[in-house]
Amino acid sequence: MKRLGLIAGSGELPVLLANEANSKGLNVISITFTEESAKSLKPFSTIVYQYGVGEAGKIIKSLKSEGVKDIAMAGKVEKRLLFQNLKFDLKAIKILSKIKNKNDDTIMLAIISELEKEGMRVLDQISFLKRLFPSKGHLTKHKPDRRENSDIEYGFKIAKEIAGLDIGQTVIVKDRAILAVEAIEGTDEAIKRGCSLCKDGAVVVKVAKPKQDPRFDVPTIGIRTIENIIAGKVSALAIEADKTMVVNIDKVIKMAEENGVSITAV
Amino acid sequence: MKRLGLIAGSGELPVLLANEANSKGLNVISITFTEESAKSLKPFSTIVYQYGVGEAGKIIKSLKSEGVKDIAMAGKVEKRLLFQNLKFDLKAIKILSKIKNKNDDTIMLAIISELEKEGMRVLDQISFLKRLFPSKGHLTKHKPDRRENSDIEYGFKIAKEIAGLDIGQTVIVKDRAILAVEAIEGTDEAIKRGCSLCKDGAVVVKVAKPKQDPRFDVPTIGIRTIENIIAGKVSALAIEADKTMVVNIDKVIKMAEENGVSITAV
Repeated sequence: MKRLGLIAGSGELPVLLANEANSKGLNVISITFTEESAKSLKPFSTIVYQYGVGEAGKIIKSLKSEGVKDIAMAGKVEKRLLFQNLKFDLKAIKILSKIKNKNDDTIMLAIISELEKEGMRVLDQISFLKRLFPSKGHLTKHKPDRRENSDIEYGFKIAKEIAGLDIGQTVIVKDRAILAVEAIEGTDEAIKRGCSLCKDGAVVVKVAKPKQDPRFDVPTIGIRTIENIIAGKVSALAIEADKTMVVNIDKVIKMAEENGVSITAV
Repeated sequence: MKRLGLIAGSGELPVLLANEANSKGLNVISITFTEESAKSLKPFSTIVYQYGVGEAGKIIKSLKSEGVKDIAMAGKVEKRLLFQNLKFDLKAIKILSKIKNKNDDTIMLAIISELEKEGMRVLDQISFLKRLFPSKGHLTKHKPDRRENSDIEYGFKIAKEIAGLDIGQTVIVKDRAILAVEAIEGTDEAIKRGCSLCKDGAVVVKVAKPKQDPRFDVPTIGIRTIENIIAGKVSALAIEADKTMVVNIDKVIKMAEENGVSITAV
């Protein structure tokens, strides 16, 4: 039976992806970084390994010894870990020493390149999970009003610029003013900050990079995003059509409807 | 004797500017927005008015009745006030209703345009306070090392892009990764956030907008900036030469030297 190596960050996405892989008849070999993640993936995996984020050597060795050829990467590995007290093994130090900066793309491409050297390939998430990427249109019955549409248009343009600079993929905007720009603190913190700077009615816009690699860091929203959006009294969420993954889409839409939040794929 | 109208935001800059104006033989008519600001400007002003930020009608009326022709704007008026519970008078509502977005430039140019209609003009801060804008070079004996120089170069490029989008003027960077981008939360909060995401050695870069209007929102650093930089264990600060104002420059440099922080005008 065919095997899929799953390099699993945090969030619900790796579980969803493992489940999807099972339903396609694949055996999943999971690489995890936390106890919690290991536990949640166990029901969907043939075997689960748990390592430190800096243990690249061990990760590659395990994948090789399991005979894995296809890899999927899913979930967020907090990049801030790279700037804190983290132990790297020799392989990780070798990878990090070769890269020219610590942007997401640079790090991920260096890791992918190492995996490819070992004869593995990393799957395109957009084709592997196509049904999770909404096409253009309103996802909710609620629709953005004139002001929100104007903020979506403005925020989309600015978010694309920010994403093009490889800084982040999300902006929080109101009345065509940028309240917050996501950098390495992540989407949730950026939403909280932006909302704390206005009373209510902020608009959240999330986009893909202009040259988004479909193998990693694909923009994703899910229940936690919507929880933050509701808590922050955001009135409209816009995502880039065909390029943003919506995890648990039915529940996400239901929560948005119940709280008067519109979701639009632009 | 010639009169200068001073529209005073927060921080030490308005006091410094009023003092400078006094030494040039100008009578200062101050418009302030807080008790604290009114008190600090009293010794340097012929008269001090205190209004709400939204009372544009009263502000213009007072300046006119005092026979003011020249205006200087100094100090930060927290833009977040515009998004919170603030009362606007009719004049302010009229100004805000005409603008196409709530970016800094748009708001400030609308206010300047109103002042000009009343026969007043707003002074260029860079020529008025030339000695406070350092030229290219190292301000401290400490110099950036190779990694810091690389981060300054990278941060400068990104900060210029951000400033060109009228989002903010400051980025916090380490190992060529953007830790934080300033939006309306302001420089101090952006520095705190960026530093909280790394152990130490962050680099702070502050620039002018590509089309910086020298009459307002000129990038400024001072003692509070350096205090935050020291608290966050930042190792290098870079500012744009000839375009960034350094308030209390001697004390700023002394504090930087004592804490091993380099300051460079790029």
